[in-house]
Amino acid sequence: MRLESRHLLGLEDLGPDEISLILDTAESFREVSEREIRKVPVLRGKTIVNYFAEPSTRTRVSFELAEKRLSADTVSITTAGSSAVKGETLRDAARNLEAMHIDMIVIRHRASGAPHFLAKHLDVAVINAGDGCHEHPTQGLLDLLSMRDHFGRLEGLGVVIVGDIAHSRVARSLIWGLTKMNAEVSVCGPAPLIPLGIEEMGVRVWDRLEDGIGEVDVVYVLRLQFERQQGVLVPSGREYRRLFGVDRERLDRAKKDVVIMHPGPINRGLELSPDVADGPHSIILNQVTNGVAVRMAVIYLASGGDGSRESGSEERQSAGSGQRPG
Amino acid sequence: MRLESRHLLGLEDLGPDEISLILDTAESFREVSEREIRKVPVLRGKTIVNYFAEPSTRTRVSFELAEKRLSADTVSITTAGSSAVKGETLRDAARNLEAMHIDMIVIRHRASGAPHFLAKHLDVAVINAGDGCHEHPTQGLLDLLSMRDHFGRLEGLGVVIVGDIAHSRVARSLIWGLTKMNAEVSVCGPAPLIPLGIEEMGVRVWDRLEDGIGEVDVVYVLRLQFERQQGVLVPSGREYRRLFGVDRERLDRAKKDVVIMHPGPINRGLELSPDVADGPHSIILNQVTNGVAVRMAVIYLASGGDGSRESGSEERQSAGSGQRPG
Amino acid sequence: MRLESRHLLGLEDLGPDEISLILDTAESFREVSEREIRKVPVLRGKTIVNYFAEPSTRTRVSFELAEKRLSADTVSITTAGSSAVKGETLRDAARNLEAMHIDMIVIRHRASGAPHFLAKHLDVAVINAGDGCHEHPTQGLLDLLSMRDHFGRLEGLGVVIVGDIAHSRVARSLIWGLTKMNAEVSVCGPAPLIPLGIEEMGVRVWDRLEDGIGEVDVVYVLRLQFERQQGVLVPSGREYRRLFGVDRERLDRAKKDVVIMHPGPINRGLELSPDVADGPHSIILNQVTNGVAVRMAVIYLASGGDGSRESGSEERQSAGSGQRPG
Repeated sequence: MRLESRHLLGLEDLGPDEISLILDTAESFREVSEREIRKVPVLRGKTIVNYFAEPSTRTRVSFELAEKRLSADTVSITTAGSSAVKGETLRDAARNLEAMHIDMIVIRHRASGAPHFLAKHLDVAVINAGDGCHEHPTQGLLDLLSMRDHFGRLEGLGVVIVGDIAHSRVARSLIWGLTKMNAEVSVCGPAPLIPLGIEEMGVRVWDRLEDGIGEVDVVYVLRLQFERQQGVLVPSGREYRRLFGVDRERLDRAKKDVVIMHPGPINRGLELSPDVADGPHSIILNQVTNGVAVRMAVIYLASGGDGSRESGSEERQSAGSGQRPG
Repeated sequence: MRLESRHLLGLEDLGPDEISLILDTAESFREVSEREIRKVPVLRGKTIVNYFAEPSTRTRVSFELAEKRLSADTVSITTAGSSAVKGETLRDAARNLEAMHIDMIVIRHRASGAPHFLAKHLDVAVINAGDGCHEHPTQGLLDLLSMRDHFGRLEGLGVVIVGDIAHSRVARSLIWGLTKMNAEVSVCGPAPLIPLGIEEMGVRVWDRLEDGIGEVDVVYVLRLQFERQQGVLVPSGREYRRLFGVDRERLDRAKKDVVIMHPGPINRGLELSPDVADGPHSIILNQVTNGVAVRMAVIYLASGGDGSRESGSEERQSAGSGQRPG
Repeated sequence: MRLESRHLLGLEDLGPDEISLILDTAESFREVSEREIRKVPVLRGKTIVNYFAEPSTRTRVSFELAEKRLSADTVSITTAGSSAVKGETLRDAARNLEAMHIDMIVIRHRASGAPHFLAKHLDVAVINAGDGCHEHPTQGLLDLLSMRDHFGRLEGLGVVIVGDIAHSRVARSLIWGLTKMNAEVSVCGPAPLIPLGIEEMGVRVWDRLEDGIGEVDVVYVLRLQFERQQGVLVPSGREYRRLFGVDRERLDRAKKDVVIMHPGPINRGLELSPDVADGPHSIILNQVTNGVAVRMAVIYLASGGDGSRESGSEERQSAGSGQRPG
């Protein structure tokens, strides 16, 4: 089986089978990062450009590691994200890259829809690494994989997402992914940060974290990003922590086997207390590990790879050839 | 045949045979970027330092792709181009790189002559990626290749270069290259931006674009770079566009098969109208594609490669070995 | 023989045998940088993250070259070194890298002890590339190698270190290294820049450079770093040069075969005159060359390499395999 599109623009566009394909392929790639030789030659001689028009360390490093472990050649472009980049300029920049015969662009951009714009105009595979307040699909996929790893399923799983839902591309991708896989999703946060009509995405809205924390399997804590909340009436950090911060006291009301997740980087002591972040319920570092595997899978599949068939044989073949110099 | 010097400092220094050698070699490398495996092992284990002391995205990316497709190892140094770098400091920086046993420096620098300074003091091949208002030889070469591709010849070709001739290293390299290959070159732009005595380089000066646009084969439009024109009396953007902007109306006076070129990035609607930039006469994206091929050729030849002999056999050999892991 | 720890945090922690092991291994790697194919496949498929939280060009480039010549995959993180990074945040950043299954972190950080902090919390090899005013062990090792190359021994060698001893991590690493190898170390500089009680490290303090310059084999000149001397009463540049600058006149009082060293970059005409920096006594560029070799050795040994045994056979084997594509 292959992906229908060679782009990964958002989880909104994927069917449940495609999501499962990516997660299965990621599982088979996860083992590569645990080998002595952390490398397979499947994308050798392919060129990937990482175009990051917004600051990022973790996502960029995760993508770079994924690309290098697939043996691709990578070039990075980071633009000082000062003034808004006009669509026309972005198109010119991208058409130039296309003319240099690159194979793929991984793009992070403050403008929602920037990756879709490129996908429409270019003959190059486009991976969305986060666009404005819209989607961050590889984050959503690594979250799904981490839940599926832990619970063995996604269907019927109860998940609450806590924080600034309105400005979070992480939340949007996760909601799309979870509802497509038939999980039961709730959101909880300060009223001005819950989008009106979000129920139409198939989620329930809680006013207080206490309303349902005893019922869910996963508490997904978003990073509080003050820089995105310009002009919106939000509580202070202290007030936020009192109302929505996830700490040991709140965790005591949750299921015994509840799981804590966070997309990182954590504001320790604000949206999440340090003891919970590092405690036995946290699978936050599993998310990070799965990030590399999911990105390897997405890049591989977007390059035309056939996940279900080759995840076995290709891997075995690669394991052998990885030993040879080169 | 080989290049006489192992440096590429400017087109002023090259003979017509050497220019043809580079263009021929670039043609043979162009095919590498169109393969499944966009890579040949000819510079494997060689170290190239990209020293960019002026901001640049396109040229840097084009060089990096060229280097990686030749399998070289690359290290990038970009310096915040704040204060003027003293020659002494540049020499120390470069002698340190030399002591680390690198093979080549690709340098962009705001000081005219910086690459020549390095070439004189170092035992390392030096490629000029743009020095001040002096030369940008790989740009000139990719322009020549794009014209030769299109017309099958350079000799006798009529070319007008439009814009700020005085501050343009692109114009200088292109004029040297075209006149050496016996093309007929004219320049056209605001009077304060036409260097006095430029006729001695073998070019004609037009006062108005209308003077000869009907006669030329190529209209080469320079980017208007306001930042380089400090203290010079120039027209406003609006006035510039009225007098020298290339748009459909002006194009109607040109030959039917005229070709439009631009070194990028384009100020759309200023020196060049969007419909002409993207129209059927434009070969601007061919220039970009040829940029990677020309840089592969220059790096290969400056490393001691023998263009005329190996462009065939080496390529065939590489095509085979490129399939192997490594 | 192997290193006792898989980290290199400082020369304070190493025994004389371990220092000799690193220097011997570096000697065997030095030849790699002089080959046609400057590369050995010993770290193929390993991932090294260069985490530079302080600006650096030379040390970063030297490490990157070392890593690439060992065939490792490298990812760079440079943080705008604006505000102090809190330990908690550094730990989170590092645990994320660990979760991505990397093999090694090379870290430069303004906080003394940052590499030790990582080594304590992570299951990843940590190399100190300079921490605050504490240590810069690979610099110390390349200095030792350069002296041993020149004199054939370290034992009994007379070395004076001139400059701001108090704020210099270079001086601290060098003093640890030299005293462990039984060299005789003196320091000389403005009184406020000589740490109280430094005699306990086994060094002598000179008030004036003239006190013993006639007796030593090596004059090691530190870079004057005004940015580190906040609030300390120091002489002006002019006064500093008069009292402690090393120029031809001072050199005339030294031994005929005295050697001049400097960690770079040089403030020419301040702590060191240009004619001495470039003169026959200077081995400053040898230090730079040895920098790459020492870093290759340290990375190799910290990866579990067995120096004494493989420095021969491994190298010979690599020389062969280096010829093959890949």
